[in-house]
Amino acid sequence: MSVYGGIEAGGTKFVCGVGTGPEDLQTARISTTSPEATVEAAAAFFRERAPGGLKAVGIASFGPVDLDPDSPAFGHITSTPKLAWQNFDLAGAVGRALGVPVGFDTDVNGAALGEARWGAAHGLADSLYLTVGTGIGGGAIVHGRVLHGLMHPEMGHIRIPHDLASDPYPGCCPYHGDCLEGLASGPAIEARWGGPAQELDPGHPAWALEARYLALALTAWVCTLSPRRIVLGGGVMEQTQLFPLIRLELARLLNGYIRKRELTEGLDGYVVPPQLGGRAGVLGALVLAEQALGA
Amino acid sequence: MSVYGGIEAGGTKFVCGVGTGPEDLQTARISTTSPEATVEAAAAFFRERAPGGLKAVGIASFGPVDLDPDSPAFGHITSTPKLAWQNFDLAGAVGRALGVPVGFDTDVNGAALGEARWGAAHGLADSLYLTVGTGIGGGAIVHGRVLHGLMHPEMGHIRIPHDLASDPYPGCCPYHGDCLEGLASGPAIEARWGGPAQELDPGHPAWALEARYLALALTAWVCTLSPRRIVLGGGVMEQTQLFPLIRLELARLLNGYIRKRELTEGLDGYVVPPQLGGRAGVLGALVLAEQALGA
Repeated sequence: MSVYGGIEAGGTKFVCGVGTGPEDLQTARISTTSPEATVEAAAAFFRERAPGGLKAVGIASFGPVDLDPDSPAFGHITSTPKLAWQNFDLAGAVGRALGVPVGFDTDVNGAALGEARWGAAHGLADSLYLTVGTGIGGGAIVHGRVLHGLMHPEMGHIRIPHDLASDPYPGCCPYHGDCLEGLASGPAIEARWGGPAQELDPGHPAWALEARYLALALTAWVCTLSPRRIVLGGGVMEQTQLFPLIRLELARLLNGYIRKRELTEGLDGYVVPPQLGGRAGVLGALVLAEQALGA
Repeated sequence: MSVYGGIEAGGTKFVCGVGTGPEDLQTARISTTSPEATVEAAAAFFRERAPGGLKAVGIASFGPVDLDPDSPAFGHITSTPKLAWQNFDLAGAVGRALGVPVGFDTDVNGAALGEARWGAAHGLADSLYLTVGTGIGGGAIVHGRVLHGLMHPEMGHIRIPHDLASDPYPGCCPYHGDCLEGLASGPAIEARWGGPAQELDPGHPAWALEARYLALALTAWVCTLSPRRIVLGGGVMEQTQLFPLIRLELARLLNGYIRKRELTEGLDGYVVPPQLGGRAGVLGALVLAEQALGA
């Protein structure tokens, strides 16, 4: 019986999975080395675990990537600092190695799709998945599909109010200084407070400020995307004390303007942690495989 | 031969149209009086101009409105300050008067749909239409369809950086103070500078500040919705000197981070004025009619 293959392609590891969903997923981790060796190791895994063949394979990839189906570089990693991977045709190489249709998207869009299909946004046609870690990225599901548009969102780079009097840290984004990512990513927390985020006490003022910045961004996305639920993942969000702080601040910022129960008394179920943990990306890649087949 | 009917329902007038698109559109303006008399006048117009009957009618309405198809109040005007219209079932009344399927959406979503079908965003599956006037509202087209999500966007209410040292005006939004609408709507310009926007000289510093605020908001929407084009309409945007100022500031804020030609050398064709003028809403309503029929 044929199954789907999924790859969460990261800069340090590839997580490969075979199955049809969370209940029957077999995974393996492969170190990211050269493009050719990494793709061959992934292909060997799929041949071994799916001897009957795959129906299709999906890839949720680190980037930047080209997602434009009309571009000659569709499915390529583009301007990454990892030199060996620059301009590598990842989707093409995986497709040729396995001889099946390939679905391709960003890692964060993959995680958004996984959480929307089987996780914290299950059953909702419109949701937002945000990862807050080394960087900040977001994937939006609109009408049940990943939003791409001209390219793909770069949600970490929106500008938010930054009160230099109370927070003189100038931000760490090399392009924008104090954009959201520049103010609220893991490296920003570490640079502002002089130590890794995970070593700061849960009562440290760092967390109220972090919640403020994230709530300002969530306000923009609530007003723009009108998601039915927001899933917050990534390393920084393992600080679970952030969730109630973010919800309170979001309610304060929206100030009752949008009269939907989810945004007034329902915030505990509206701003939520992920449910698929480290498997969101590879599970989302299975959905990409399914979509590539037109299933 | 049957045609579509469209209504742009505003608080002071209803614009009614019969036809299939901009080339054959017959319109009439009806003053907004009582709900019953206004709907009856609209229905009389459609009976006269489409004696063979309409296939369907679309309504792009002032609000707030209920767009949730599962809600008992779907198609109603909800908490408007116009007392006679509070909780009026506009979609139901029009449907009963004409005996045809009814499409229903907000006025700004209607204009977004009209511009996407026949106007400045023609042929693009993903676009953003913004109106900057008494209020600020946005309609997003994603995968060729209007984005609704939980409710509908309230784009005017995102928070943007506000430097109180250079602009001490506190904003005029009764809910949020200095959200985008509070800082950049027509009433905000008038309150800040002490006179109506349209009376300020094109070289007045008001316009550089206005362009700055709108460009900050566009940055958030480019990073979130990744539209293929942004159409800026509404009374304030009749100050056409704003367009080059906004494009320059948007380029400065994005700072080359998103490497798409549209956002680097292509901004003249990316941030554009509407093409349908005052007919965007009623033409969008024709599209709503078509969609109601499932055509």
